[in-house]
Amino acid sequence: MGCSSCCDSASCVRRVPVFNGLSDVEINQIEGLVDSRPYDKGAFVFREGERSDSLFVVNEGLIKLTQSSRDGKEHILKFLFPGDYFGQFALLQNKQNYVNAEIIESSTVCLIHRKDFIPLLENNTTLAYNFLLSMSEQLHHAEDWAAALHMLEVDKRLAKILLYFHSKDTLNSKVNLPASKKEIAAMIGTTAETLSRKLNQFEELNLIKVSRRVIHILELEDLQHLAGTNRS
Amino acid sequence: MGCSSCCDSASCVRRVPVFNGLSDVEINQIEGLVDSRPYDKGAFVFREGERSDSLFVVNEGLIKLTQSSRDGKEHILKFLFPGDYFGQFALLQNKQNYVNAEIIESSTVCLIHRKDFIPLLENNTTLAYNFLLSMSEQLHHAEDWAAALHMLEVDKRLAKILLYFHSKDTLNSKVNLPASKKEIAAMIGTTAETLSRKLNQFEELNLIKVSRRVIHILELEDLQHLAGTNRS
Repeated sequence: MGCSSCCDSASCVRRVPVFNGLSDVEINQIEGLVDSRPYDKGAFVFREGERSDSLFVVNEGLIKLTQSSRDGKEHILKFLFPGDYFGQFALLQNKQNYVNAEIIESSTVCLIHRKDFIPLLENNTTLAYNFLLSMSEQLHHAEDWAAALHMLEVDKRLAKILLYFHSKDTLNSKVNLPASKKEIAAMIGTTAETLSRKLNQFEELNLIKVSRRVIHILELEDLQHLAGTNRS
Repeated sequence: MGCSSCCDSASCVRRVPVFNGLSDVEINQIEGLVDSRPYDKGAFVFREGERSDSLFVVNEGLIKLTQSSRDGKEHILKFLFPGDYFGQFALLQNKQNYVNAEIIESSTVCLIHRKDFIPLLENNTTLAYNFLLSMSEQLHHAEDWAAALHMLEVDKRLAKILLYFHSKDTLNSKVNLPASKKEIAAMIGTTAETLSRKLNQFEELNLIKVSRRVIHILELEDLQHLAGTNRS
């Protein structure tokens, strides 16, 4: 393993919240177990129906998790940004993946093999507890999003997804849309035409400024208010 | 605590898959920590925005988890049958619940308080691991269902939800719909009229027989084939 792989693995483990709270000794031990792989845009880490036996972590790049129907439709479940993990279902359940993991920007992915990861989980209650917290948070997001798709108007759903992308890099007020406007429209359950019209409305309200796939967020609090996410 | 409470608590712990694989000594220990409460139809165990500090398990009855929008719309996230647990988000994250837990048939609910449950999790890797598996399975179901709502035709979504209700009592070929047809229609993203038409079509195909809110499943495999759940 060359130097670049070592450095990748180190940054990879430390950036994943699931490993927060572990001691330096434990982190170093985990870093020694991590492998790092480059993927080109368009490649798949795994496809729906395939097995895999690792926990994968995005170190650099951008990945989307999708499901496809028999007639070729695609449903984007989520985008994965640096620090996000995936593959836990096939890993923990020892079953086939139920999603495709497709690289949408050249990525470096770290992986910890089942034979190393399961003993870690069994011997480290902080890690098991962190993982449980993270899964409970993911279930929360999945259920919240399903409810939003069902109950909220398009402009609220659009505000929610923009805020979600923004949450991945809160220091940057510019959001790069990780997919085409047609794909984003499908994700929020609307048409590309309605999405364009809503983006124009948001611009007229001075909430955002749009330049192709870059959305500059001008009024974060107003956007949060519109999405209903600042009610607490 | 009277005899009926003891018996309730015992059956409650043993019927929850999260506690599978624990020793009899451990199960007995957990049973000693469990409290049991009756709830009438229409009551709430907790509401969206409220805090709670227990893991709740349905021992008898039927509960629905919902979210509501500011304009009074309701989204049913899931139904909870005996053996299902809930409240884990507020418990683990120490945050407000993001769902309402509403009793739809008189229920007995068991609960384990945070002060007892967290030490159990920290000291019992089988329990922590089981819980993690269960959460990963729940995330799978939530994501699968979101994809189904997005990509599949109404008849496949209807077949899926009927099979889901059937899975809660596989020995019984009769499914009691846990909600009104209007609510079921909303869950599968259609109108009550379309749902009625599809139920009629399923009857004409001899897949099911409908008597008010009871669905008699006549051809389980055909229904599975229609839902696309027997492809493995």
